[in-house]
Amino acid sequence: MSYETLDWAVDDDGVATLTLDRPDALNAFDLTMARELLEVFTTEARDDAVRAVVVTGAGRAFCAGMDLSADGNVFGLDETLEVTPEALRERFDDPAYADGVRDTGGRVTLAIHALPKPVIAAINGAAVGIGATMTLAMDLRLASTRARIGFVFGRLGIVPEAASTWFLPRIVGLQQALEWVYAADILDADAALAGRLVRSVHEPDDLLPAAQALARSFVVDRSAVALGLTKRLMYAGAGSEQPLEAHLADSVAMWHASVGDGKEGVAAFLEKRPPHFTGRASELPRVLPQSSSQASSQASSDRP
Amino acid sequence: MSYETLDWAVDDDGVATLTLDRPDALNAFDLTMARELLEVFTTEARDDAVRAVVVTGAGRAFCAGMDLSADGNVFGLDETLEVTPEALRERFDDPAYADGVRDTGGRVTLAIHALPKPVIAAINGAAVGIGATMTLAMDLRLASTRARIGFVFGRLGIVPEAASTWFLPRIVGLQQALEWVYAADILDADAALAGRLVRSVHEPDDLLPAAQALARSFVVDRSAVALGLTKRLMYAGAGSEQPLEAHLADSVAMWHASVGDGKEGVAAFLEKRPPHFTGRASELPRVLPQSSSQASSQASSDRP
Amino acid sequence: MSYETLDWAVDDDGVATLTLDRPDALNAFDLTMARELLEVFTTEARDDAVRAVVVTGAGRAFCAGMDLSADGNVFGLDETLEVTPEALRERFDDPAYADGVRDTGGRVTLAIHALPKPVIAAINGAAVGIGATMTLAMDLRLASTRARIGFVFGRLGIVPEAASTWFLPRIVGLQQALEWVYAADILDADAALAGRLVRSVHEPDDLLPAAQALARSFVVDRSAVALGLTKRLMYAGAGSEQPLEAHLADSVAMWHASVGDGKEGVAAFLEKRPPHFTGRASELPRVLPQSSSQASSQASSDRP
Repeated sequence: MSYETLDWAVDDDGVATLTLDRPDALNAFDLTMARELLEVFTTEARDDAVRAVVVTGAGRAFCAGMDLSADGNVFGLDETLEVTPEALRERFDDPAYADGVRDTGGRVTLAIHALPKPVIAAINGAAVGIGATMTLAMDLRLASTRARIGFVFGRLGIVPEAASTWFLPRIVGLQQALEWVYAADILDADAALAGRLVRSVHEPDDLLPAAQALARSFVVDRSAVALGLTKRLMYAGAGSEQPLEAHLADSVAMWHASVGDGKEGVAAFLEKRPPHFTGRASELPRVLPQSSSQASSQASSDRP
Repeated sequence: MSYETLDWAVDDDGVATLTLDRPDALNAFDLTMARELLEVFTTEARDDAVRAVVVTGAGRAFCAGMDLSADGNVFGLDETLEVTPEALRERFDDPAYADGVRDTGGRVTLAIHALPKPVIAAINGAAVGIGATMTLAMDLRLASTRARIGFVFGRLGIVPEAASTWFLPRIVGLQQALEWVYAADILDADAALAGRLVRSVHEPDDLLPAAQALARSFVVDRSAVALGLTKRLMYAGAGSEQPLEAHLADSVAMWHASVGDGKEGVAAFLEKRPPHFTGRASELPRVLPQSSSQASSQASSDRP
Repeated sequence: MSYETLDWAVDDDGVATLTLDRPDALNAFDLTMARELLEVFTTEARDDAVRAVVVTGAGRAFCAGMDLSADGNVFGLDETLEVTPEALRERFDDPAYADGVRDTGGRVTLAIHALPKPVIAAINGAAVGIGATMTLAMDLRLASTRARIGFVFGRLGIVPEAASTWFLPRIVGLQQALEWVYAADILDADAALAGRLVRSVHEPDDLLPAAQALARSFVVDRSAVALGLTKRLMYAGAGSEQPLEAHLADSVAMWHASVGDGKEGVAAFLEKRPPHFTGRASELPRVLPQSSSQASSQASSDRP
């Protein structure tokens, strides 16, 4: 496939690099980019040849946020609909609501979240608004010394979106999360590191290689099934009410692993040789109750 | 209004300063203070002229905890009732249970939590027991070098209250939260900062101005609706099971913003001028499912 | 009782020291150790003479993980069963599923979690796989400079278990948790401290005395009922959706404390004398809704 706003390349180890590629517009997020991101995360990134995804920006920015230069309705919302929490929940699958009410950024981040593979943000420059919140649904964030990150919604009279209020307090804690969204300021790389938003800070030229090397270390000689289930389990565990829920899910996951790649993993370990895993991320056993997984897949399977 | 135990003042920017004002008793929390705190957070603080609230203590303490000098039943509980989780849930609105079983501190912290505006604690001295836990429902905590904070319940044979077990692990992490409530010790400002309980430490004379300046930076030229929804979304996101729940809520919030203050915010940004927001915190659209918001408003609307 | 794989000793203050005691096998976890751990946490540790538990390893390791040297089916799972999230939930109590599907490590960690007393890990050396995840259900982790901690499941084609995906993100945050399980590396004590996995690092000879002294500080002159309820409330609060849930639970707990050990605690405080608490952890009032507590007790009451 080819994209107007993205570049997509997969190396021999299965590490994909997804580049937001509108450098003249500082990779600003518009409805085309939203559609293409949803497309790439629900099709090409789902290919079993892809083991992990690194996301970065072309030129000097990561993503400067929603493209406000578009004429008229920048959020693409339909102002004529009745919008209440109940109406949206009930008409979740109705195209009028999917396109006219559901937040575009959130449709993208739910698709990133639903991808059963590691996703790493390599924040090379300005990451503002949706440019910041889209990275929260990625598993890890690495930053260049030139990164500038801003949850600036408050300055525009709008709110943090893209399901960011689920992710942010679980990454940096509730107090730090509240301060950043209230302040709506731009953080430099050191502030983002001190607040534990980013995992590490790198010289600009070292950033992308570091992110790709980290991704590679997660996937080479590893089971795609174990990795995918691990991601599912961790996010479910971070949101579930009781340890018992995690026990039920990890029991099912471990049982499936034990009759699959886990057998090979233990044998290889005992025989002191590299494992040869054959499981495929596209065939993950379901380990979470139907309602949870159904809702997530609904949320990510729609196209904008 | 005038209060026996509180002082309340609102400046021209809408930053209210609420002072716990029983300095001779180290601002100890008694049933009068509980009633007055519930009153102020459900009436005066709800006024649209109030944009944010800073809470501090008169004299050398912030709040020395429950006033144990009261004769007899210091907790104000009715020992004759049948008390089980089911009985309390069922009779939540029954005045006998509201007054005789529900924790007084929790009624106050739920009202603080339900206020759709930033609330900042300026911890000027001893903050012990309910004096410590009441600050957890505030969004940010600033401390003076003289702050002394103690979750001392264990020393009295009682338990952490005021819904603190919801807030504390989300602010400082589960391990730190458990250690502090088990130890039941008094923390100095440096320990509170190292454990990420407080956001920053200030010289005593600088504390209140710093808290007020921070509050001001959150509200001047900002939308009261966007701020209120942001607070609602962040706390809901921090407690919800799945990112999908946050997506539903922030979609509704963003839709409402996009037909309201967000329109002005984007226009002002494009025209490079300050925005003139007109939304009112008293008219927030509902963005969470009925059951969540109903329960919270029930919890905070009762008077003691 | 006497154990093949464990050593159990209780001092005069009620501080129990549980030693994983297969030093020749680096205290590797096998089905005998699983059975004995479940036994000790559901019987002897429940005795009211026991006030807190410190867990450590004999010799140079804490626990080197699942004993993979066992012939055949190392996980003890029954490959002939139908295993889906729904099937496991429905047949939770069916011995075929309890023994053949439910993760052995999780049965142990749920029993640790359900014990209404402080549990402290003293990680003296290698803590790998289940040796690492079992410590997550303990309330605090202290490490020796020789500790080496690894969530190495990914190297074997399996997944983090023992309900670890509930505990780990609440202790260290979501980003750090994901990195550690994806990397599947061995952390030294300094890395574990920097990531807030362990509370403190000690010289090898100082580790166990430090853990025992900390446990002692939590229980001497303290109410067993208040401690037990505090543990219940904190874990429930960390998982519940809304502060309102914590308010309901802590109201019930505080009411019970106020007619029990809290009366003595306040009296002793006012009379400036040590308290003499008489409440028993074996007679905790129930403060959480039936469904939560029932499920947890089900989960922990089965024997392997």
